Amino acid sequence: MFKELAAASGALKALLDRSGPVTISEAVHLAAARGRVLSEDLTSPVNHPAFERAAMDGYAVSAADTRGATPLAPVLLNIDEVAGGGRCVPVRTGMAAPQGADAVLMKEDAIVRGREVEATAELHPYKNMAAVGEDVGRGEKILNEGHRLRPPDIALLASLGLSTVRVFERPKVAIIPTGSELVPPFSAKELKPGEARETNSLMIGMYAEIWGGSARMKNLVRDDPRLIGEAIAENLDADLILISGGTSVGDQDYAPPILAEMGELLVHGVRITPGKPTALGIVDNKPVICLPGYPVAALAALYIFARPLITMMASRTDLPRTVPAKLAGKIASRPGYLTFARVALEGGVATPIMTTGAGILSSVARADGYVLVAEEVEGREKGEMVEVNLIE
Amino acid sequence: MFKELAAASGALKALLDRSGPVTISEAVHLAAARGRVLSEDLTSPVNHPAFERAAMDGYAVSAADTRGATPLAPVLLNIDEVAGGGRCVPVRTGMAAPQGADAVLMKEDAIVRGREVEATAELHPYKNMAAVGEDVGRGEKILNEGHRLRPPDIALLASLGLSTVRVFERPKVAIIPTGSELVPPFSAKELKPGEARETNSLMIGMYAEIWGGSARMKNLVRDDPRLIGEAIAENLDADLILISGGTSVGDQDYAPPILAEMGELLVHGVRITPGKPTALGIVDNKPVICLPGYPVAALAALYIFARPLITMMASRTDLPRTVPAKLAGKIASRPGYLTFARVALEGGVATPIMTTGAGILSSVARADGYVLVAEEVEGREKGEMVEVNLIE
Repeated sequence: MFKELAAASGALKALLDRSGPVTISEAVHLAAARGRVLSEDLTSPVNHPAFERAAMDGYAVSAADTRGATPLAPVLLNIDEVAGGGRCVPVRTGMAAPQGADAVLMKEDAIVRGREVEATAELHPYKNMAAVGEDVGRGEKILNEGHRLRPPDIALLASLGLSTVRVFERPKVAIIPTGSELVPPFSAKELKPGEARETNSLMIGMYAEIWGGSARMKNLVRDDPRLIGEAIAENLDADLILISGGTSVGDQDYAPPILAEMGELLVHGVRITPGKPTALGIVDNKPVICLPGYPVAALAALYIFARPLITMMASRTDLPRTVPAKLAGKIASRPGYLTFARVALEGGVATPIMTTGAGILSSVARADGYVLVAEEVEGREKGEMVEVNLIE
Repeated sequence: MFKELAAASGALKALLDRSGPVTISEAVHLAAARGRVLSEDLTSPVNHPAFERAAMDGYAVSAADTRGATPLAPVLLNIDEVAGGGRCVPVRTGMAAPQGADAVLMKEDAIVRGREVEATAELHPYKNMAAVGEDVGRGEKILNEGHRLRPPDIALLASLGLSTVRVFERPKVAIIPTGSELVPPFSAKELKPGEARETNSLMIGMYAEIWGGSARMKNLVRDDPRLIGEAIAENLDADLILISGGTSVGDQDYAPPILAEMGELLVHGVRITPGKPTALGIVDNKPVICLPGYPVAALAALYIFARPLITMMASRTDLPRTVPAKLAGKIASRPGYLTFARVALEGGVATPIMTTGAGILSSVARADGYVLVAEEVEGREKGEMVEVNLIE
C-alpha cells in the first residue's frame, strides 16, 4: 500500500521546482535547426537588402526628373544605362538601383515609344525603391533568445548570410526499462509463459524527442536493486532519467526505494488514474521519474509529469494541443483522483473508451485524445462540452 | 498583367481534383514509423496476452476453492507450486497463471499465516486474472488503413511481436529554385549588387517534410526557359513539383508558360495577397505549383495551396492548428482577395503586423500565425475575435 498519495499538481510542482531548463548552448547548422530554441538574441550582421533595389518592375529614374508628370502632361525620358538628367533604366523587381536612380516608375505609369518612355506620374524619392536595410538593418534584433526556429525564420537567417545559430542543447533523457519478466522489443524469440515484450521504452523515447529532448535508450535491467542503482548512476550525466517499471509497492518494486537511497524520493504514489504508482525523485540534482509498467498508466504519467518537465527543460512553451468536443457518453472518474480518460473523436464528438484495466494498450490505439477529469469532479456527463487533449 | 485572376478556393480545387494520394506502400521498421500512415488494416498476429496471467499482486487460486469465504468465515489455503484442491500460489501482476489457477486473490483479501493463507473473499472465475487475448485477440483488427502511427500505437504493435509495418510512401516533393540573380544559401561568397541569397527552397523543403512529404532539393536554375523545362522534365518521377520564382508576368518569368507548353497551366494569377503570381499546373499527370519568389508571398502560397495538396497526397488529415484570439488592431484587407495577414499572439490577443511589402521576411519572424480574411470581407476590426492559424 502507498503510505500517502500526492496530488498530481503538487507532485509536479515539487519536481519542477527542483529542475531547470538546460542552459548549455551549441552551434547548429541552419539546415538542421528547425524546432530548436535560440540561446541568444540574434541581431543582423548585415543590411538587408544590402543595396538599393527596385521593388517593382518598371523604369528606374531620378524622382526629380518626374516633377509635374501627369497622364495629360507626361515627362519624356530616354532609355539608357544610367538614370537622371532625363534618362531612365528598365529594371525588374529586386535589381540593384542603377546609378542616378532613386525611384522606380511602374510599367503602368509608363508609355514606351521606342527608346523613349513617357512618364505619366510624378514620383517622390524612394517610390517603388527599397532602401538599404529596409527589411532588416545591420545590428537590428531579429529574433529573441527562447524563440523556436520555424522554416521562415531559418530562411530569413540564411538570407542574411548566416549558416549556423546558437541554440540550447536538447535535454538528454536517459530511458531505463526494468522488469525481469520482459524481453527486448523486436526480438524474434517466442515468448515463454510469463514473459512480455518491453515496449514502453519505445513509446517513452519517442515522446522524449517529440517534447524537445534527446532520447538515450538504455538496455533492459532486471528487477535487481543493485543493477537498477548502477543504471541510474551510469546515467547521471543525462539531464533527466525516466525509469520504466518497478514503481509499485510489491516485493520487487525497487525503483522508488533506490531513489530514496541514492538521492531524494519526492513523491511515491500519486492521485492519478491510471498511473498511481508513479514516483518522482532527485538524484545528484537530476530529476528522475519512475513510470508505471502498465502501458496506459505509463502514458498518463508521461503526459501529466514528463511532458511539462521535458518541455520546460527544453525551453519550450508549447502546450498540449486541445480541441473542444461534446461527450457522447458519461466519463466515470475516481473521486479524489485526476482521471486520464481516453476518448475517440469524430466531428466534434468525443466518445469515452471503455476499458477494464491500465494494461489495455489497445484502448489507446482507438483513442484520439484524452480528457483530464479533475480530482474534485465526479465524472463528466453525456452531452457536456470537454477539452480533449490530442494524443500526439 | 494577369489576364484573369482565379479565386483561391477554385484554384485549389482545380489542383486537388487532378491529384491524388500516393498509393504505393513500403515496409518500415516500427522504430522509424512514427508519423507514418498505415497502408493496410492491421490485425493482430497473436493473442495478447498470450497466456492467462495475474492482473493483480496476490495469490493465484482455483475460484471454486474460495466458495463462501468472508472475513468472518475465511477459507484456508496452503501455499504451494500449483493451485486448486486447497492450494494457492503467490503471484505478481503479469505473471502467468500457475497450473490449476483461474483467479487471483488480492493481497488485501488474504491473511498470511506462515505457509497458509486465509482467503477472506469469494472469487468468481477470472477475477483479477487476464484471459488469453483479453487485450487483443488473434486476428482482431487493431488499426485501420489510413491511421497515422503515434508512439503508443507503435508500442502496441511491438508488444504483439511485430517489427515492421506497411505504410504509404511519402509523396516525393521536388523543389526547384529559379532566379538568375540568386546565389545558393550558405555560400561564403559576398553578394554583388543585385544578387540575393536563395533561401525560399530551404523553407519550402522544411514545410514539405512537416506536411508529410519527402523533400528533394534541386540546384538553383537560371532564368532560362530551356533550363527550367529540363529541371521539370528531370523531376517528373517525383509526385509533386514546387518551383520557386519566375511566376510573375515579366519578360523573364518563364515558369508558367513552360507549364503550359509541357502540360497544362490550370491557373496563373490568384486572388490571394500576398501571393498573386502563384501558378498551378499539371505536367505528365503530376501537380506543379509555381510559388512566387517574394518570401512572404511564397509562405502564403505554401499554406494556401501546398499544404492541402501535400497532406492529401500523404493521406494525412491534419488541419492547420488554430487558436481563437481577439484583434488588438484592425486588419486591412484587399477586397476580392483572400488576405494572408500575419499576426503576433500573446495571451489570447492577436496584433496585426504592419508591413510594406511581400518581401519583408522579417515580418514573419515576428509573426506567430496568420489570419485569413475572406474575399468578400473588408478587413477585420479591432476587438473582433479571429481564428489564428499558427505558423508551424
